[in-house]
Formats: sequence, structure tokens, C-alpha cells
Amino acid sequence: MRLAFEEAGESYVDVARERGGMQKMMKLMSAPPRDATEPFAPPFLRHGKMLVAQTANILLYVAPRLGLVPKDEASRLRAHQLQLTVTDFVAEIHDTHHPVAVSQYYEDQKSEAKKRARVFVRERIPKFLGYFERAAGPKMVGRSISYVDLSMFQIVEGLSYAFPRAMKRMHERIPKLLALRDTVASRPRIAAYVASGRRLPFDESGIFRHYRELDS
Amino acid sequence: MRLAFEEAGESYVDVARERGGMQKMMKLMSAPPRDATEPFAPPFLRHGKMLVAQTANILLYVAPRLGLVPKDEASRLRAHQLQLTVTDFVAEIHDTHHPVAVSQYYEDQKSEAKKRARVFVRERIPKFLGYFERAAGPKMVGRSISYVDLSMFQIVEGLSYAFPRAMKRMHERIPKLLALRDTVASRPRIAAYVASGRRLPFDESGIFRHYRELDS
Repeated sequence: MRLAFEEAGESYVDVARERGGMQKMMKLMSAPPRDATEPFAPPFLRHGKMLVAQTANILLYVAPRLGLVPKDEASRLRAHQLQLTVTDFVAEIHDTHHPVAVSQYYEDQKSEAKKRARVFVRERIPKFLGYFERAAGPKMVGRSISYVDLSMFQIVEGLSYAFPRAMKRMHERIPKLLALRDTVASRPRIAAYVASGRRLPFDESGIFRHYRELDS
Repeated sequence: MRLAFEEAGESYVDVARERGGMQKMMKLMSAPPRDATEPFAPPFLRHGKMLVAQTANILLYVAPRLGLVPKDEASRLRAHQLQLTVTDFVAEIHDTHHPVAVSQYYEDQKSEAKKRARVFVRERIPKFLGYFERAAGPKMVGRSISYVDLSMFQIVEGLSYAFPRAMKRMHERIPKLLALRDTVASRPRIAAYVASGRRLPFDESGIFRHYRELDS
């Protein structure tokens, strides 16, 4: 979401990262405005009277307004289909370090995490990245940059942080995705965003976590 | 998807269940028509030149055409947001019996499954169903039946099959969802579909599996 706003040069407020922001976020979740749907979980977007939750749904809503998806229905469905597959992939990435319970510490599910991560590295990374590599043009949808390209950038960056050894072995099988990562990184607004330090760093409290024992 | 077509009285062919259907499905997956996006996995819908994958995306595409979602953008986003939360829930339901690897047998990940299912029953069923209960009007979106109501029907039916003991304990906390399940079950076309025997039965090869040891 942040990458989409940055690429489009659209202003936004990342409420949860402001002082008192977590409380504001929790309050809006438990008492959404009239006619709005309560979000199941963060992130969610407030835009005027709209309150939209679920990352892929937010991108479906904002991308046409930001010029980050072609106008025709077929392209939009194609973009959303790819984004939903990103969603599935991200859930699996998360579950490598939390295979038993989101409510418990990684340290308390470490042996299960090792088992799940071994299969993830061997089977799931090649399956998902192989799929995205086949789907890549030079761009993912149409001829211009779209939000799906931004998602690919985030996925490649995140996996390279979390699973550096596994990703190194993937390199020669994903030339188009790596080129796309570089294309996105060199977009002026994205480059400025990354250089600004405002971009959230990857760390062991997020989805993409680097635990050496999981990167077999 | 099947419930949506049945409720709308729309004809469809469930290709994978026909003779030679699996091969047809695999062929279309590995060699999609020109300009179509390769699906990552079943299910997918072929409609004229369109090939649409990801269940929530398919419903996003067909529901307006079948009259199963209100016309305004806010309602459609609300419906899709709820459906994407159903998607998340279904993935977690699946992972109760496959917490380590989709590629391995349940029997080979049984001890991990017990751990994950215990947390799922205690924390995740109440969290998800509590959310859907709060979101329920008498209908989930707008005043008429929508595809989200059909999804709620399927979720309640599937969980009642897979986790009968856990669901029995939930009953008094989800009166609106149970009423909605009954409303959907009594829709003439849905009732006829269920009575016809064409509806796929729940069993231990699907997402909703009943293993007594997981229903704590």
C-alpha cells in the first residue's frame, strides 16, 4: 500500500506509526464509522467516508485512482488475481515462523517452524516465484508499471532479507523478477522513498523475518 | 462458486468432475488461452474469452452478473472485504490438518496438526465467527441475499462437519449466522441443489475434514 501511494506521489498518513496511532487504529477497528464495515485486522484505509480493509481489496480500490492498473476489466481482474496469489504467498511466508499459532512466540514453535520452513524453501518458493516469473512480461500487467510490479518488488526484497541463501539459489531461475525488482527500485519516487529512511525496515517483528535456522 | 451459480439459476459445467476433466483442467492450467493469465491453482472459471482464477476474484467477477451483490461500489468492496476474510479463514481451516506441508499426508504431520488445531478451536474459530456475527445484518451485505451469505452458509456447514464439538459450544454466540445458514438452506434453488445429490459431500479429501482428534 505504501509503495503504491509513494509511486503515485499521493499523500497519505500512516496513522499507526504516529504518536498515539495504535490507540487510534484500535478504536476505529472496534467502533467503525456508521455504514462502514469493521475491519477484521489491519491494515485498512480511510478515504473520506470509505473504510476499506484487506490489502488486496485496498489496492483494488486505490489502484485505478492512482493510475496503477490499466482501465479495462480483464487487466484489472488479472492484476487482482496476481495480487491474491501474492496474498496467499505472504500468508505462507508468515507461517514459516508461526506454523502453530499467531498468538505464540516464535521461540515456542521453533521445531515446527523448522519443518515448515524446510518444505517452504524446497517446494513453495520455487512454485510461487516460478509462477510469477512465467506471468512477468517485462511488467506484470500491461505495458506500464502497476501495483502488481510494486508487490513483486516487495516480495523479492522481503524474501532476499528473510531467506538469503534460498533466494541466491533461485537467482538464475527468476531473471525477469530480478529485472523487475531493479526497475521498481530505480523509479524516482520509489528511490527517493527508500533513500528517505521512511520505508519500514525488515526485521524480526514483521512478516519477513530472518532466522538463520529457517533458511536451509 | 457452485452455490452462487445454483442460487442464480445459472448454468455451468464443473469440468474437473466430468470424465477426463482433470486432464482438461491441468491442460488449461499449463497452456492458458492467449492473453489469459495462467491460474496458480484451481478453481478457475472460463467464461467466453475470460479465464478468471482465485475464488474471491471469480466471485467479484460473477456476482454483479448474477445479481448476487448490490450495485454500488461501497457495497461491493464491503462484500469483497468479507469474502477475503472468508479466504483467510478457509486457509487457516485447511492448515489445521496440514500445518507443515500441503504436499505431505495428514498422517505425517499429525502431532503438529493437533497443536495447531487446539489453538484454532480455542482462538481462531471464536475470532472469525465473532467477527462475521458482528458484521451480519440479517444479511451480510445490503438487504437481499448476496454471495457473502452463501459463503457464510458454506463456512457454518463445513465447520459443523469438521469440528462438531467446537461448533456446538459456539452456537449461542452466533445466533445471526445460524439463522443465516437456515435462510440460505431454505432458498428454493439451494434446497433443490442440496436435495439433488449434486452438491459435493464434505469428506477427508477436502478442506473441511473431520478428524476426531482435532475437534477438542
